[in-house]
Parts: sequence; C-alpha cells; structure tokens
Amino acid sequence: MLRFINHFNTKTLDPFTLEKGYEAVRFEAHSGEVGYYDLPRQSQTLVAEVEALRPSIDKKYNTIAVIGIGGSSLGIKAIERLLRPGTPNAKKIVYLENSDPISVNQMISQIDRPRTLFIVISKSGSTVETLSIFKRVIVAFDLVVQNSDQIMAITDEGSVLARFADENGLCRFTIPANVGGRFSVLSAVGVVPLTLAGFDTMSVLKGAQSFLERFWKREEDHLLQKAAYYVTHAERYPMNVLFAYSDTFEEFGKWMVQIWGESLGKRNRRGERVGLTPIALIGSVDQHSFLQLIVQGPLNKTVTFMHIAESEESLMIPDLSLHYLEKSDFVNGHSFNELINAQCMATMKSVIESDVSVDEIEWKKIDEYSVGEMVLYYELLTSVSGALLEINTYDQPGVELGKQILEGYFKK
Amino acid sequence: MLRFINHFNTKTLDPFTLEKGYEAVRFEAHSGEVGYYDLPRQSQTLVAEVEALRPSIDKKYNTIAVIGIGGSSLGIKAIERLLRPGTPNAKKIVYLENSDPISVNQMISQIDRPRTLFIVISKSGSTVETLSIFKRVIVAFDLVVQNSDQIMAITDEGSVLARFADENGLCRFTIPANVGGRFSVLSAVGVVPLTLAGFDTMSVLKGAQSFLERFWKREEDHLLQKAAYYVTHAERYPMNVLFAYSDTFEEFGKWMVQIWGESLGKRNRRGERVGLTPIALIGSVDQHSFLQLIVQGPLNKTVTFMHIAESEESLMIPDLSLHYLEKSDFVNGHSFNELINAQCMATMKSVIESDVSVDEIEWKKIDEYSVGEMVLYYELLTSVSGALLEINTYDQPGVELGKQILEGYFKK
Repeated sequence: MLRFINHFNTKTLDPFTLEKGYEAVRFEAHSGEVGYYDLPRQSQTLVAEVEALRPSIDKKYNTIAVIGIGGSSLGIKAIERLLRPGTPNAKKIVYLENSDPISVNQMISQIDRPRTLFIVISKSGSTVETLSIFKRVIVAFDLVVQNSDQIMAITDEGSVLARFADENGLCRFTIPANVGGRFSVLSAVGVVPLTLAGFDTMSVLKGAQSFLERFWKREEDHLLQKAAYYVTHAERYPMNVLFAYSDTFEEFGKWMVQIWGESLGKRNRRGERVGLTPIALIGSVDQHSFLQLIVQGPLNKTVTFMHIAESEESLMIPDLSLHYLEKSDFVNGHSFNELINAQCMATMKSVIESDVSVDEIEWKKIDEYSVGEMVLYYELLTSVSGALLEINTYDQPGVELGKQILEGYFKK
Repeated sequence: MLRFINHFNTKTLDPFTLEKGYEAVRFEAHSGEVGYYDLPRQSQTLVAEVEALRPSIDKKYNTIAVIGIGGSSLGIKAIERLLRPGTPNAKKIVYLENSDPISVNQMISQIDRPRTLFIVISKSGSTVETLSIFKRVIVAFDLVVQNSDQIMAITDEGSVLARFADENGLCRFTIPANVGGRFSVLSAVGVVPLTLAGFDTMSVLKGAQSFLERFWKREEDHLLQKAAYYVTHAERYPMNVLFAYSDTFEEFGKWMVQIWGESLGKRNRRGERVGLTPIALIGSVDQHSFLQLIVQGPLNKTVTFMHIAESEESLMIPDLSLHYLEKSDFVNGHSFNELINAQCMATMKSVIESDVSVDEIEWKKIDEYSVGEMVLYYELLTSVSGALLEINTYDQPGVELGKQILEGYFKK
C-alpha cells in the first residue's frame, strides 16, 4: 500500500491541464497505440504459462543469467532488489549488461555453467552489447545452441533474435510491438525471469492493475497534479530528484532515471528541445553528499521523498552508552528503521523550509503488490508528463546517430 | 597517465577569470587555510607508518570493515573499486554506511568476526549513522572495546571519538583539522584502510603530488579553463554530467557527486543561492537510459566523457557469426575494450554534434598513479570553481537544520 502526498502548492494548477493529461493517456490506452496499459492484466496469463515451466527449470538451474541492457535489465533489477529481502530463496540472478570487459569477465567467471539458465533479452533483437556478450557466453561455456533448453530469448515478434531462436528451437517469449523497452518490465521481459527465479510476479501485476484502475476512476489525481506541476514548472525546476530512503531503492532509482529521462527528453512538435532531468538519490547516505546542494543551491529542483513505514528487518540500535559518545544516545533503543524514517522526515521538513517543491511517497511496507503499484505510478506519471509536454514519449531518436557512427568506426 | 581535452569553446573565456581562480587556490594552499593541498606529500609518511603495522594485521585479518558514511566512505570505495581488478589479492573491504536496517543486518551477517578489523571513521566523531552501527557491531560480535587491537578510529584531533579511542587504548589516526570530510580521501581516511588492505597507496599519493605540482607550474591550465567555463555558464548549464565508460567508475562517480554538489551548492556572499548539479553516468549502460535526454532535451548540461585506452582485461568478442544476427558481426574479433572505447567516441561525437559542451578525459590505463592524479584533478576543479563562485567551498551549513529536527524528534 502506498500513500501519496503532494506538499507543493497545487492551487495554482490549471484544472484544464489535469484533464488534458488524463484524456491524452486514456486515448493512448483505448486506441491500443501504447501497449503497457494492458500488461497488468495481459501478463497474468503469461505468469501461469511460466509457472508451468518452473518444475523442470527448478530441477536443473539455481541461477538465471539475464543478458540484456537498458529496458531489458533495469526493471528486472529494480524489482529483484526490492523483493529479494522478502524472498530470500529465489534463484540468484546475474546480469550481463555492459560492454565493460572487466565486468563481463567477472560475471562469466562467477557463473556455474551447468546450473545456469541464460535468458537473452532485446526488444529490437540487435543490441550490440547483448549480442556480443551472448557470443562470448556461447564460446566461454561451449554452449550448443541448437535445441538448447538452457537458453531462452525474449524479443519482438519477427525480430532477428526471434528468427534465430525459432531456427534453433529455443524457448521464446514475445514483447508486444506497442510496448517500448523502458515500459516493458511488466511484459515477458520482467515476468519471465522473475517468475522463473521464484518471485511472486502475479501479485506485482495485481498491484499494478489495481493502481491503473484507481487512476482511471480518478482516485489517484495526485498523479495528474504532480505531472502538471512538473511540466508547468519545467523551466524553473528542470530537475526532479527522487530521494528514496533505503538501499533497496538503488536499482529502482536507475529504472526511474531511464523511464523519465529517455521518455521526456525530446524535441516537441515545434522542434524545441524539452525535457526534465531525473536524479536518483539514496537516504540517508546522500544527506552526506547531495543534500547541501538541494537546501542552499539554486532552487531548480523538485524533490520526492520516498520511505518505508515498516521494514522487513527490525534490527535495533542497542541501548549502549559509550563514554564521550553520549551525544548520539538519543537514538538508543530505537530500531534502525525508526532512525531512517525519522531522518527522512527531518530532512523533508528542512527541505520544505528551504522553499523547495516537495512531495512524499510512503510505502507501508515493501511487498509485491506495492511494487506493482509503484511501477504503474511512474509509468503513468511519465506518460501524462509526456502528453503535457506534447512530445512522443515512447521513441528515442536521439541515440541513433551514435549507433551509426559506431558502425562506421568498425566498418572502415 | 591522463589526457585532458576541452572540446568546448575556450576562446570566449576571460583570461582574468583563469588568473583569479589560480590565485585563489594558491592562496588557500599557501596560507594553510585549506589542508588537502598538503596531503599528497604529508600522507607519504603515514603510508610508511601504516605499512609497519601490516605484518601483524595481515596475520590476523583478511577483511576490513569500514564504519563510516559520506566523506568517510565514498573516497575509499572509489579508489578500491578502481584498483581492485589490478590488485586482486587485497583484503576484502566491507562498508557499513547507511542507517538502512536491511543493509546493516546483511553486512553484519556476512562478517567473519575473528578475521575482521573494524575501522570507525568520522571527522566530527559524532555521526549518528556511524555511531549507531558501531554500537550494533559491538553488541552483535560481543566486542570488548578496552585495549582491542581489532578496532581502530580515524577522526579529528580532540573529537569525542578521539577521546573515546584514547580512553580505551585503541589505535587512532588523525584527520587534519583543515581538511574537510569530502576532501579527506588522501588523509588517514583513505590511506589507513587502503594501505592495510594491501593497495599501493604510495603510488596514489605520488600521482596526486605530480598532478598538483604540474598544476602549480601552470602545466594543467585546461583545468582552469574548465572551471571558468562551468562557472561562467552556470545559469545556462546548471548540470555537469560525468559520463564514464567502465563499471569501475561507479563509486568514483558517487565521490565526484559529493565533492561537486556539497562543495558548490551554497549561498554566496550576497546571500544568493548558487551551485552546479553533478550527475554521474556509466557508459555504455546509460547510453540506453540518459543519453536521449542529453542529445535532444534542453541544452542545460555539460558532459565530460571519460574512458580507458588500455584495459586490464583483454576479453574478446568471438569471431562467431550467428544466422539472422549477422548485423552485429561488425564487432567480431575485436576486444570488448575496443567496443566500449568506440562507443564512447561515437557517443561523444554525436553529443558534440547536438551542440552540447563537451570535454574528454582519457586514462591510458587504470593504475594507482593515475587514480591519484584524477583525485587531485577533481579536488582542484572543485576548489577553483568554488573560488570563482565566491562561496565557502569547504563548509556545509545547509545540512544542520535537518540534524537538529532529527534530534528533536527523538528527544520529545
């Protein structure tokens, strides 16, 4: 369960802007133009299919190696990290992402070949990092691809990777054509590896579905307010900070950075450059790093404080007084979770007092259902903001030139 | 060895601004007001002292647990991560930082008590996270503090932690009073744990010293240009991105974010809010996330591209052509390091073509000497920029209010 509080001033918002945002995403969903709105319901069938595969997978494998980058890894990592403390027996997942030789080599050397299922994920089917690492994995482990039940593929229908998988008789799952990579975590991209690993993805989907239905019923209008506020103040506040109080939000923050930055940084219809810059911070650590800039630097950021009321872990600060160190005794006998929540509240208060626009998201606790709600929340927030910015939220034309230059380097 | 290239337009810079920046830091260094300038030379004696302790430490311990947060952990982590691939036999270092109950518990449960040396680091001596975790460690492992040779402290002379350490007969190292937490990595804060772990900190210091001397001799004026450019364009480009092409820069990026954000986000003499926002990205991963925003979003960022010419790791992309996937064969037979470097070059070219202000830092390879140079480079860049912004680069008054509110919560 999540609680949303907009501390910024919502009174000056134009009600028409909210309606415009709502209608735009409703149109996207109903026209079938954008597919992620259907995933919370659609993917429930997929979970059942994948669950049916589990007994044979469980017998053979204790590790899943995800070969994918960007939208094909960030969402999986985000959900895994959040749910891992409550699902300690889930299979290990390793991620082969970056073209960094040190990382690739380290990951490969850690893999127990006979006990690892390899899942190659690429929407286009032709991502250079993913295919290069896949080739390296084939050679390093002497994998026989033909009819292998140790390799799966997740990709668009009709992509080159799909054809490769079919020709080799590999198990293959499809990403709907109208679901973009960064909006794909609730498609096969996230559902297949996480379900196979043993995470309760059905509850994630139900949480997502519930949030979406509440949003359509206008029970989550705080989201429309926030999108309208961010877009209306885009020039004044070009940066949006997510200050999340738990290390388990680290990968979630990276997922948020992708969906926000890559979706909204665009040229609009008039060819003007628009966009909002996401920044993901972790509390309390970044109180010792970035906070000073928020409090006394230029007022060019909004901040979202995120915290967890009840933790899985009840670890206490001992009631131990050490001579000379008594100044810190005020937290003795409290739990670390009380401390980190109080730090979040105290920091939020001080940031509000320094005139920064703040909102707050409270998790009652981290569970599958809330994770699903949170994913849908950020996807919808992005879509509404994109609609208000009058851009195409779902493409990424700016990264094509670099890819062409790269091919040019190697081909000459 | 590092190579610095400013691709942005340096012609419009006012030569007087460069001189002003240079003179300001020279004054800081010569007056003794700011102490980090002395560390590269000063700490060489410390390395010798710490090396003398190593034989007895090596016999007893295979792990170092650093209990510290912010300036007391970020720099150590940054250097460790960069040097670890070339120093595989160094002791394991674990970091107890955040007040997150899940992390604290996970870290503690992984620690092999008899084989672990605990180093408590806090400049002020009263950091609430650090002392709470220290208490938890004492209780969890039933440590007898009195005359323990398993606990060390690093703190300011005269701090409460120093008095506690002395009363209990603990080994203690001092952070010079004129060295701020975020500028302390080349003091005992970084030198003691890294040397004890087995890293060649002497070479790090020599690299730092060499960069500093070249800077004083006006052989590194590109740094003055960059600081002047950033400060002159602070309103137009309020964000400075470091796009570093290797996963081993992940912690370095966080260290950079702290030193840049916390030093420069201030009220200036006239009470105006000034500052520059740091953003740390990793290539090629963030090409699939943040790049679109840089290329087509608002022109409000500078970007520094950082890459490594020669890698420790020569891993190759196999010369393997897979049916249907031939489109990626252009990288076959090349090393992953060639790929990631070419990705950096191609992306940099595309970013420059989209009118973004870019500079480039090339590492010949990651070694101790270059790490030292890089640390001094960013420290000096911060100091010059702070001087040009006419702020106090070395304090952090904005975080005090939150601390007071926190104490208030617990005391009532």
